[in-house]
Amino acid sequence: MKKIFFLLGLLPALNCFCQTDRSSFDPKVTEVWDLKPVKISPAKKIGDPPSDAIVLFDGKDLSKWTTAQNSEAKWDIKDDAMIVTKGKGDIKTKQTFGDMQLHIEWRTPDEVVGEGQGRGNSGIFLQERYELQVLDSYESVTYSNGQAGSIYKQSIPLVNACLKPGEWQTYDVIYMAPRFSENGRVIIPAYVTVLQNGVLVQNHTQIQGGTEFKGLPVYRAHGKASIQLQDHGNPVSYRNIWVREL
Amino acid sequence: MKKIFFLLGLLPALNCFCQTDRSSFDPKVTEVWDLKPVKISPAKKIGDPPSDAIVLFDGKDLSKWTTAQNSEAKWDIKDDAMIVTKGKGDIKTKQTFGDMQLHIEWRTPDEVVGEGQGRGNSGIFLQERYELQVLDSYESVTYSNGQAGSIYKQSIPLVNACLKPGEWQTYDVIYMAPRFSENGRVIIPAYVTVLQNGVLVQNHTQIQGGTEFKGLPVYRAHGKASIQLQDHGNPVSYRNIWVREL
Amino acid sequence: MKKIFFLLGLLPALNCFCQTDRSSFDPKVTEVWDLKPVKISPAKKIGDPPSDAIVLFDGKDLSKWTTAQNSEAKWDIKDDAMIVTKGKGDIKTKQTFGDMQLHIEWRTPDEVVGEGQGRGNSGIFLQERYELQVLDSYESVTYSNGQAGSIYKQSIPLVNACLKPGEWQTYDVIYMAPRFSENGRVIIPAYVTVLQNGVLVQNHTQIQGGTEFKGLPVYRAHGKASIQLQDHGNPVSYRNIWVREL
Amino acid sequence: MKKIFFLLGLLPALNCFCQTDRSSFDPKVTEVWDLKPVKISPAKKIGDPPSDAIVLFDGKDLSKWTTAQNSEAKWDIKDDAMIVTKGKGDIKTKQTFGDMQLHIEWRTPDEVVGEGQGRGNSGIFLQERYELQVLDSYESVTYSNGQAGSIYKQSIPLVNACLKPGEWQTYDVIYMAPRFSENGRVIIPAYVTVLQNGVLVQNHTQIQGGTEFKGLPVYRAHGKASIQLQDHGNPVSYRNIWVREL
Repeated sequence: MKKIFFLLGLLPALNCFCQTDRSSFDPKVTEVWDLKPVKISPAKKIGDPPSDAIVLFDGKDLSKWTTAQNSEAKWDIKDDAMIVTKGKGDIKTKQTFGDMQLHIEWRTPDEVVGEGQGRGNSGIFLQERYELQVLDSYESVTYSNGQAGSIYKQSIPLVNACLKPGEWQTYDVIYMAPRFSENGRVIIPAYVTVLQNGVLVQNHTQIQGGTEFKGLPVYRAHGKASIQLQDHGNPVSYRNIWVREL
Repeated sequence: MKKIFFLLGLLPALNCFCQTDRSSFDPKVTEVWDLKPVKISPAKKIGDPPSDAIVLFDGKDLSKWTTAQNSEAKWDIKDDAMIVTKGKGDIKTKQTFGDMQLHIEWRTPDEVVGEGQGRGNSGIFLQERYELQVLDSYESVTYSNGQAGSIYKQSIPLVNACLKPGEWQTYDVIYMAPRFSENGRVIIPAYVTVLQNGVLVQNHTQIQGGTEFKGLPVYRAHGKASIQLQDHGNPVSYRNIWVREL
Repeated sequence: MKKIFFLLGLLPALNCFCQTDRSSFDPKVTEVWDLKPVKISPAKKIGDPPSDAIVLFDGKDLSKWTTAQNSEAKWDIKDDAMIVTKGKGDIKTKQTFGDMQLHIEWRTPDEVVGEGQGRGNSGIFLQERYELQVLDSYESVTYSNGQAGSIYKQSIPLVNACLKPGEWQTYDVIYMAPRFSENGRVIIPAYVTVLQNGVLVQNHTQIQGGTEFKGLPVYRAHGKASIQLQDHGNPVSYRNIWVREL
Repeated sequence: MKKIFFLLGLLPALNCFCQTDRSSFDPKVTEVWDLKPVKISPAKKIGDPPSDAIVLFDGKDLSKWTTAQNSEAKWDIKDDAMIVTKGKGDIKTKQTFGDMQLHIEWRTPDEVVGEGQGRGNSGIFLQERYELQVLDSYESVTYSNGQAGSIYKQSIPLVNACLKPGEWQTYDVIYMAPRFSENGRVIIPAYVTVLQNGVLVQNHTQIQGGTEFKGLPVYRAHGKASIQLQDHGNPVSYRNIWVREL
């Protein structure tokens, strides 16, 4: 019989100094006092930004955003939401980020148009390159690694947790940026956890490289980068976007 | 200059078959169609149980719970909450769990009594042994690896995201159970991610072993186990408890 | 200035009980006595099997092996090595494995024939499905995720650490099997670390699913499985194969 | 019956575009050509430095080493080995390192003196703070998280893979440095894998913070740092030390 560990306590002849009697241990030895987490104020309502969040969009204006080409962002704003405006192109945050907790709310059009990848398609590019898919895949059929909640063409969501088109949905994202060696090789890949509407859809998923429509994802070294929202030609809305740097 | 990877495209003499021209690639090759995530219905309100959740406490009764000794659970229920009832001991779920997403809400007494570990102390034992601390540490001073949001005596929360005593707080927990070899040795430790009031306080934290008041944590092999709530003598309340098996 | 943690020791007014003075701590509290690792005997010569290894091939016979179809393995044996014998098909271990440390030595023909994937091609399928590539890629050009040391079509080796064709090479592999949920979904992917000729070529690489020649890898639930060696039509030799279950 | 994933292929009515027929896929789409690992030369004999290694000690002199206080290192050298020389203090590499593969050989005195932590004690401090224990624990009894192969007071080795006192032993170490946030908090802990005499004794072990004799380990932010060898008063020998930066 194989045995890797055995309990010394079970041995017939036992050196008394081998038995761990914890009762006499001072519990203070395993207390840590000299590092204190900073106190922040969480929101009263889950989903609203806590005191240490950077609010990226509060319904008023696009002052924190530019186009992907660094010119003025021109998506429409209506009813406290920004709306992908066809032909205006992707927009991205002026500020760049690494590891972060991201909250973002999105809504696909209540008037359903198109199918598969043509229905309510947009996307959230973490660090401008790793796409968390936004899509109306409530009932529409598409490939599983391309539906809402997927890391596009890399990781299928654990469940389809979509609400109906026209309803506001939330993504709560914990994102750990990749680390690169001095030689430009990825040495710690990115990891992402996503809750969609409060339901876990990506569980510490390892990202395989930059999102690719064709062929395999590949890592290319980069530093901090923006959060980028995709103009895929469909009027998807976004609101209540905030981020906490980790 | 050292270089681990180089781009073949930069070489003067390039074998044409080495250059990857993705333009001709068929994008269907990286679509996955034949695995489909099951469709579930998320709650309309974040925090409420989605359709695939097991509701452990809905405010009505303790029918899903027993004492740690498997007799009838006798905590008081009031205003849709269960209250730690001094002397009634810990309670645990009748059902046992492994990997899970757990939602639980808790409230420490609005009348502040005691200090440090004596103020509003309770705890959530994942699999009956790994304690996510519950404590009124809004203003009270205690050791950092013993405050609310800590994995007790193992991991300090990233921030103090506490609400005031008397206010309802939430934990959203993603828990990956440890894996043991046939010999009883831990081979993949447990990992836990915790959002407190929507704020990340534990980020894929590796659990070091069973929670110990004295001495170091140590792993001992186990299978599925209950979620256990601690009676530490303070009237802490719990409500809206649900779990999704992963 | 943002600050998540601060040192209490730096504060002007310090509650004396907050400062951790470790000098009075009993060092015994952080000693662990009651779990003892089993004592094994390592080999005198690195590469030879330690006392707790299961020797899968010692140069004598194929008694531990069958074909993939569970009939008698018929590869040739010569000079203490087994040789891929064209047309005899893949062979696999009779015993099945999960997490393991694997040592295996291989040699591609000293007479170089063919190019790219046609030169000295074989492969080690961990659990019958995850291929660690064996190839003469000392000087031959092929795709990087298909050269020796790669997880085939998934992960490029960190460096090309190949010896010349005709020389014996070693793989030391640390393999953690994937874990699946009761529903057949992968919940912890497989990870693999590989040293080729003593040089790290795969560093805790996450495996993305079963090896696929066409299209993306996909996980399908399985239990313990064999180590399988590929007949790719080239007379690659293997010797000194042993495994330690973790 | 619960089911997270189902195979579309099993459904009675199947949309033909849902079934993945991989046979028509072009296998080139999953080839990666444009990133090439650099070619290095492994040693002919396992344990000797490959061509891209930095040799830290080749048996001749301590030119790559200083004392912990940055003055001249004064350990004795004899028979191509350096020997811990009582009273000369710890020595460390002049060069500093982050992620690395480390090879080091060590020998405790063949004349056994002392017991437990007093017998052939030294240690290898990764980045000057995370101790991989060196000890004659072939037969001597000590606490398990303090024996050879342990991460001192943090992680027990998987097996006791020690050779006899007086025999040369090897450590092959894969070390991933911790990453800290801009605020000084650890955001990705260090991980270490150790083969002792070719046998896995630490398997992707998470390091909990700097090594502490008393109390719990705690992380404090740092950058690249030296490899440091401990003078614990016993004449332990070291030889053939090399490192590869990852």
